[in-house]
Amino acid sequence: MDMVTRRGMLSGSAAMVAAGGILSHQSTARAAAPIVGKQAPGFYRYKVGAFEVTVVADGALAFPVENFVLNATAEQVKAALAAAFRGTDALSVPFSPVVVNTGSKLILIDTGLGDAAFERSKGMIGQFATNLKAAGLERSAIDAVVISHFHIDHVDGLLTADGKPAFPNAQIFVPAAEWKYWMDDGEMSRAPKGRIEGLFRNTRRIFGALGGNVMPYDAGKEVVPGLTAVATPGHSVGHASFVLSSGASSVFIQGDVAHIPVLFVANPGWHAAIDQDPAMAEATRRKVYDMLVAEKMLVQGFHYPFPALAHVERTASGYREVLVPWNANI
Amino acid sequence: MDMVTRRGMLSGSAAMVAAGGILSHQSTARAAAPIVGKQAPGFYRYKVGAFEVTVVADGALAFPVENFVLNATAEQVKAALAAAFRGTDALSVPFSPVVVNTGSKLILIDTGLGDAAFERSKGMIGQFATNLKAAGLERSAIDAVVISHFHIDHVDGLLTADGKPAFPNAQIFVPAAEWKYWMDDGEMSRAPKGRIEGLFRNTRRIFGALGGNVMPYDAGKEVVPGLTAVATPGHSVGHASFVLSSGASSVFIQGDVAHIPVLFVANPGWHAAIDQDPAMAEATRRKVYDMLVAEKMLVQGFHYPFPALAHVERTASGYREVLVPWNANI
Repeated sequence: MDMVTRRGMLSGSAAMVAAGGILSHQSTARAAAPIVGKQAPGFYRYKVGAFEVTVVADGALAFPVENFVLNATAEQVKAALAAAFRGTDALSVPFSPVVVNTGSKLILIDTGLGDAAFERSKGMIGQFATNLKAAGLERSAIDAVVISHFHIDHVDGLLTADGKPAFPNAQIFVPAAEWKYWMDDGEMSRAPKGRIEGLFRNTRRIFGALGGNVMPYDAGKEVVPGLTAVATPGHSVGHASFVLSSGASSVFIQGDVAHIPVLFVANPGWHAAIDQDPAMAEATRRKVYDMLVAEKMLVQGFHYPFPALAHVERTASGYREVLVPWNANI
Repeated sequence: MDMVTRRGMLSGSAAMVAAGGILSHQSTARAAAPIVGKQAPGFYRYKVGAFEVTVVADGALAFPVENFVLNATAEQVKAALAAAFRGTDALSVPFSPVVVNTGSKLILIDTGLGDAAFERSKGMIGQFATNLKAAGLERSAIDAVVISHFHIDHVDGLLTADGKPAFPNAQIFVPAAEWKYWMDDGEMSRAPKGRIEGLFRNTRRIFGALGGNVMPYDAGKEVVPGLTAVATPGHSVGHASFVLSSGASSVFIQGDVAHIPVLFVANPGWHAAIDQDPAMAEATRRKVYDMLVAEKMLVQGFHYPFPALAHVERTASGYREVLVPWNANI
């Protein structure tokens, strides 16, 4: 074996007649199979006790690396991406809502970006409805939608492209602290202009279209049986996470406690530009991740690589996500 | 936020009326959506230059932890599994053949365990044909099957359950060194009884059923255009790997140079009981993984967690696989 570098490995090939030449003498006249150009349906199933969880990919968006992290330079961010073998030209941000079938109720946690975004992006994002159908489920079968916070990638899918409720048979649950802040006219009047024209307007547009079908929930309580809300403020003022439990099994559904893990799990002290209160977000992140490590608890991360289910281990400078291996047989 | 441990996080819940109670007052009388109990189709697509690769899951089998590694105790193996957050009762071994569409040819590399195994295992393994169909491809469209070595999980899929060629339009390529050893009556006569009754017999059964449609290939040459064979002996005497290249992109398709990565990539000095020449397998493994690290080259690993595509980094005691994040948009 002559192999030290890839070039070394291939050094013998040029001088010899390629065995591949043989293939071209085949007498078959069939056309080559066409390049498909389409990914597998983006869903993944696993069990939490008696519950069946279906992670449903909503697609991914590329963000500029610059100014994504408040307290790290673009060079530091690019170095972190390169260390994780990611491209450094842009930051790919995936979105992964989850559906939980408790056996009696079908619960969606966060929605993805919705049908209008699917149309605008030519299918790059807003894939939730397509992938949900591929998973054998329909939006009309969802009994409850539980929202972690009011950022657009978590709520915009509540509406169809023409602004109608996308989950006609579901009760919509929202964090009480989030509802209080974003629906308060005084808070809106004191907010920076960008936030007023952005999230404040969007929140009122989305929930206005839902009429009265919005039920605020408090942290520390079961939102629906088996799904307990946990206050994890910082990323937004009323940001909530969830512990999903059935029998002896549980998983921590974190929302955006940590955003892209190779940035913010690896460097829990880094502050995402999108965090509303970065210092509070960091404190929450450290508490949650210390707990995940201590309890060896699974985390489902909205912006983790699909299917976004991982264990967490401690490193010298932070934490590392260890993705759960894909399971062919549930 | 009261959160140090999971118990702490949930401490508020018992004393309060669950908001979930509200859900039970809903007036809908729809039946709950049924538990599906079925994983997503096991295929995944990525590009290597102009080529389209489809990784096709064949399922997974559980092996006893005991005696899987020659030179490590069951306790050491269990500790390695636990450190990677894997179960320690058994070792889950997945199988992931790959299909490459070069634009003019459709090439399969290794076959999985085949239809007979699918029937015997009630679908736990031998899923290749089902998942290939889910990926929009048919076995009859395969132009070439390139085999890395003659272990059953790599060749048994060459035949249907009734012993007929499973790829009726494909030319079958096998490593010349592997062919020479396993088809040699002298080698068979000198082999241990288990190997005679196992792999020697199986090899002759499989290739006998293919008639003359077997083309030995030499290492260092292109087997088919874009796919160059590399001699990587040890796991079996004639074991081969491949460099798939198109334009500036390439991936190392390793076969079984390293088996389960959390065991043998993390501990390259560990010897798999299934290695035919464990010392040679280790030397090959270290050379290949040093090259993968030095070249930052992607590796496609037959027994890696699906979709089995990773970068490799060096650690204090060996290497670590860093799975490529699932890409919703090819």
